[in-house]
Amino acid sequence: MSIENQHAETWKHLNKHLPEWLEESKKYTEDGNVAAYIPELASAPKDVLGICIMDAAGNTAKSGDHEYRFTLQSISKVFTLILALIDRGEEVVFSKVGMEPTGDDFNSMLKLELVEPGIPFNPLINAGAIAISSLIAGSSPDEQTNRILHFFREVADNGTLDINQDVHKSESDTAHRNRSLAYFLKDNGVLHHDVEDVLEVYFSHCSVEVGCADLARMALVLAHNGFDPIRNQRLIPRRFVQIAKTFMFTCGMYNASGEFAMNVGLPAKSGVSGGILTMVPGRYGIGVVGPALNNKGNSTAGVHLLGKLSQEFDWSLF
Amino acid sequence: MSIENQHAETWKHLNKHLPEWLEESKKYTEDGNVAAYIPELASAPKDVLGICIMDAAGNTAKSGDHEYRFTLQSISKVFTLILALIDRGEEVVFSKVGMEPTGDDFNSMLKLELVEPGIPFNPLINAGAIAISSLIAGSSPDEQTNRILHFFREVADNGTLDINQDVHKSESDTAHRNRSLAYFLKDNGVLHHDVEDVLEVYFSHCSVEVGCADLARMALVLAHNGFDPIRNQRLIPRRFVQIAKTFMFTCGMYNASGEFAMNVGLPAKSGVSGGILTMVPGRYGIGVVGPALNNKGNSTAGVHLLGKLSQEFDWSLF
Amino acid sequence: MSIENQHAETWKHLNKHLPEWLEESKKYTEDGNVAAYIPELASAPKDVLGICIMDAAGNTAKSGDHEYRFTLQSISKVFTLILALIDRGEEVVFSKVGMEPTGDDFNSMLKLELVEPGIPFNPLINAGAIAISSLIAGSSPDEQTNRILHFFREVADNGTLDINQDVHKSESDTAHRNRSLAYFLKDNGVLHHDVEDVLEVYFSHCSVEVGCADLARMALVLAHNGFDPIRNQRLIPRRFVQIAKTFMFTCGMYNASGEFAMNVGLPAKSGVSGGILTMVPGRYGIGVVGPALNNKGNSTAGVHLLGKLSQEFDWSLF
Amino acid sequence: MSIENQHAETWKHLNKHLPEWLEESKKYTEDGNVAAYIPELASAPKDVLGICIMDAAGNTAKSGDHEYRFTLQSISKVFTLILALIDRGEEVVFSKVGMEPTGDDFNSMLKLELVEPGIPFNPLINAGAIAISSLIAGSSPDEQTNRILHFFREVADNGTLDINQDVHKSESDTAHRNRSLAYFLKDNGVLHHDVEDVLEVYFSHCSVEVGCADLARMALVLAHNGFDPIRNQRLIPRRFVQIAKTFMFTCGMYNASGEFAMNVGLPAKSGVSGGILTMVPGRYGIGVVGPALNNKGNSTAGVHLLGKLSQEFDWSLF
Repeated sequence: MSIENQHAETWKHLNKHLPEWLEESKKYTEDGNVAAYIPELASAPKDVLGICIMDAAGNTAKSGDHEYRFTLQSISKVFTLILALIDRGEEVVFSKVGMEPTGDDFNSMLKLELVEPGIPFNPLINAGAIAISSLIAGSSPDEQTNRILHFFREVADNGTLDINQDVHKSESDTAHRNRSLAYFLKDNGVLHHDVEDVLEVYFSHCSVEVGCADLARMALVLAHNGFDPIRNQRLIPRRFVQIAKTFMFTCGMYNASGEFAMNVGLPAKSGVSGGILTMVPGRYGIGVVGPALNNKGNSTAGVHLLGKLSQEFDWSLF
Repeated sequence: MSIENQHAETWKHLNKHLPEWLEESKKYTEDGNVAAYIPELASAPKDVLGICIMDAAGNTAKSGDHEYRFTLQSISKVFTLILALIDRGEEVVFSKVGMEPTGDDFNSMLKLELVEPGIPFNPLINAGAIAISSLIAGSSPDEQTNRILHFFREVADNGTLDINQDVHKSESDTAHRNRSLAYFLKDNGVLHHDVEDVLEVYFSHCSVEVGCADLARMALVLAHNGFDPIRNQRLIPRRFVQIAKTFMFTCGMYNASGEFAMNVGLPAKSGVSGGILTMVPGRYGIGVVGPALNNKGNSTAGVHLLGKLSQEFDWSLF
Repeated sequence: MSIENQHAETWKHLNKHLPEWLEESKKYTEDGNVAAYIPELASAPKDVLGICIMDAAGNTAKSGDHEYRFTLQSISKVFTLILALIDRGEEVVFSKVGMEPTGDDFNSMLKLELVEPGIPFNPLINAGAIAISSLIAGSSPDEQTNRILHFFREVADNGTLDINQDVHKSESDTAHRNRSLAYFLKDNGVLHHDVEDVLEVYFSHCSVEVGCADLARMALVLAHNGFDPIRNQRLIPRRFVQIAKTFMFTCGMYNASGEFAMNVGLPAKSGVSGGILTMVPGRYGIGVVGPALNNKGNSTAGVHLLGKLSQEFDWSLF
Repeated sequence: MSIENQHAETWKHLNKHLPEWLEESKKYTEDGNVAAYIPELASAPKDVLGICIMDAAGNTAKSGDHEYRFTLQSISKVFTLILALIDRGEEVVFSKVGMEPTGDDFNSMLKLELVEPGIPFNPLINAGAIAISSLIAGSSPDEQTNRILHFFREVADNGTLDINQDVHKSESDTAHRNRSLAYFLKDNGVLHHDVEDVLEVYFSHCSVEVGCADLARMALVLAHNGFDPIRNQRLIPRRFVQIAKTFMFTCGMYNASGEFAMNVGLPAKSGVSGGILTMVPGRYGIGVVGPALNNKGNSTAGVHLLGKLSQEFDWSLF
């Protein structure tokens, strides 16, 4: 059987069984809890589970609550990292953040105090992502935010993406730990901007509202190394996608990244809104949402569904 | 020889030899460095060393640069603790701060993250002192600051004590680590006030300018358990002085408190301006200043001079 | 009233009320649990509470289960520290252990890894006490143990003190954490001996069996700065008792030392067998036992009873 | 050009340029230092650099000091993990070790103390590898060691592989930190065996002596998912190789694993002897040695050479 035919078979099999696999995974929503620390997120429905898988031609396999809308939260960090790399280059970016997984909680400050030179271990933990936000080109938080929003829209091929102002306000009002992180970074010489200005940018990109199809669309571009196979154009230099995907693989799922790598084996990034962006390199972009989280901050049902799919189709990179 | 005569002998001996002991200790100023992290402190003269010892009748033994003016810095924490105890009582105060030495740096955040319930281990480390500042009675930072200033003036019997505005501004401009601590406390539910408001109060009491005689006068009141033997009136309930002195003994000299207890054996509190307030319980109040600090943040020459005096007069409590 | 008469009054008052205070405190045994990690200790009766207070003439006030026998455990660390100071002097001892409270658990290894130069923070945590055991004079574990036993008997004026072999065996069989500590110390260059040899000495002195009267007798010598007021002879140089008492005050009650200092205000050392050795300096030696421990490792009822006595007689040093 | 022709071109290009790339990388040996903590390793020549690359037909490209002999050290951990999975299955193995990178040093004990349930974060740090050693089937250390040696010989297709007894003795004599780790694990309930027995097994597999060709041969089996393309037989179940390679990617290069993933992008495992085992999945097995290490414990020149090759041939998985 030719590769094309194999792909067609896979796609058919996928479309056929996706609803039953989703249904199976849905019971894992009961094991999780929606994020409570941002009040606006605490009202999310616990039993939601949706998925959208997009192939290089733009065909989609969708199931469940795939139209449910949610904010990117930490998923945005992948794309601000890429934009910072575009705006500043590798050397500047890696003078502000390291390349290593930490094993600590996403909002931990331990290593900032304990490990010289006191820069965040990687760009996907909160401290690192805040440092990255400060690197986006622009002479004001507004300019930086607009630049990010424009980039997200471009990658998602969706000009309507926008900030959910209620979530933004809710985050900003309650993000004392992020403020603490940011001032620690400033004390360590990592941040030079006004802390509130940087956080304004950070909260903004975390609060961009999307659906599963948007995640799948954004992931598709990463799956094709920065080249958009639908519009047939390069959106991101390949090296920067390589960097982003490497981080997604080693630290994209908070401190359950190793477990996800073992059981799913794909580069991915999760957010506390319950979203997961992942991809089958060279093939599909995938967006999942399930707001009920496990104690590591990842969607219980979403992780289960991706594990099922990976096993079924032998998607693990290893 | 009667106790009174013994005291007279001691006092005579002290006055006679103080200049030579100070001279001996002065060479230890060379081993230290003035605090650099607050720009306004960095310009302090490194070779200053002064002392004032005051007895219950108000007699003073003075030597060296005892007229040198400096800001209280962490020494203020002893008196804001006492004022918070007066304003809120033990129960409220100890719901916000613990009673234990930490072994960590004065501005460490490790235990706030690692040890439940995430309150500062004691009121003399930065995190604890910031929490204490928030407890001072008053409906605004100005009211709280005025209340503190009034209290300091009363204990020091010096109506001219005031805030050094240059130091205050310098602290406020550069205190990113304290802001980080304060937001961490807010996230942990220890602080309920606006962080900048609390820090305004904190920076204000740290920036009160004094001389050695002021420290000695304030210490005299503690040496007499809250009763001022000169004005013959109780200024502080005894229990609150007991609490303060216990903390001074176990954690008053940053994380060299154990060493100071071993070698000097008196309750004391140091500040990064080089000041040390200590006392001989029931007898003297003592103020020392020497801006050259060791790597623990204590005046090198000041600690040496106090060690010499303690040994000479057998002042250790143990 | 003369000082002698005051003392006589106090002693009378103490003897009269001790049984009722003990009875009051006894209910706090319900709040604690006997140490489970050494199997031989786990069988201790939870509701035991006993006390013995001894004055300089050897008179004793006793109440409750004061004849209950128990092992010294960490209380022994005070006297091995003193013996190491006698055998090696201050300089050697303080090249192996520091002088600072840690704020960490008694068996913590964090600071050995995190804080240069990797020596135990003080001689009363497990790591420090193991290092101290290695310093006792003697060419074999047996010689060292015999030297310690001889010293304990001398200070306690009780030639029958001996090692409880069942407890010793139980400790040795289960002390994996202490072995871990000891090998870490060896790796850090603190220990040069064979680890099992050092631990043999350590387990031996922890397993010396005593009663409340023994603790009171040993404490009496410390209360009089190393001079035995009963046999009228100096047993320990005063400086070494000063060092020991300072450590007892700042870190004698595990990481509830600050709280004990605040509420009782006396130098003390507790053990996981439920014993507490404390003293009123210049006056009494005190031994308490109550095997039910709080989560910090101190006798719940014992701490309560000492708090009551300290308040009643104003014993706090501050 | 057909895939076969492409491969042939690559192989030709590789063979042609390997000597010059090795020569270029060799100067990086000057930036490193040979491991000093095991005396027997300290005598390794600093300027050695060798490589062997093996394709599925058993052809090899070799350059530099590829005949230099060295011990596996941490590289052995990959294969003891696989053997433990074979002997005990995933469930047992992952009840003893986690799946997450740590960000801490390879011999760190912090997370064992700080993070519940106190099991090693992954099987490639020392604590994890010691736990894994205890899981190898066998009723004595000798049996376990023989089983391991037999397995290593089988995977390497080299019946002469053996333990370097001098290195073994040197490790055993000086491995106080590993003993400390092992006793901590025993205290946490992770190890049930006698500690010295487990360490005997651990030191043995670390001390197996190999050359670059052995590493390349072993890696070739992993590159082909457990199937040996030369002898045409399955040696290891694919799932266990998947697990091993995932760990190699996320934590195989100590706490520079993230950086290696970014710059080389291949699953790899390094040892303090200077060896690196890596592979191009589906293609080559690679063995490198360069005893001069950077401060993370990886061969300076070896990492450089692999970076060069990865870039030249676009080997990164992402």
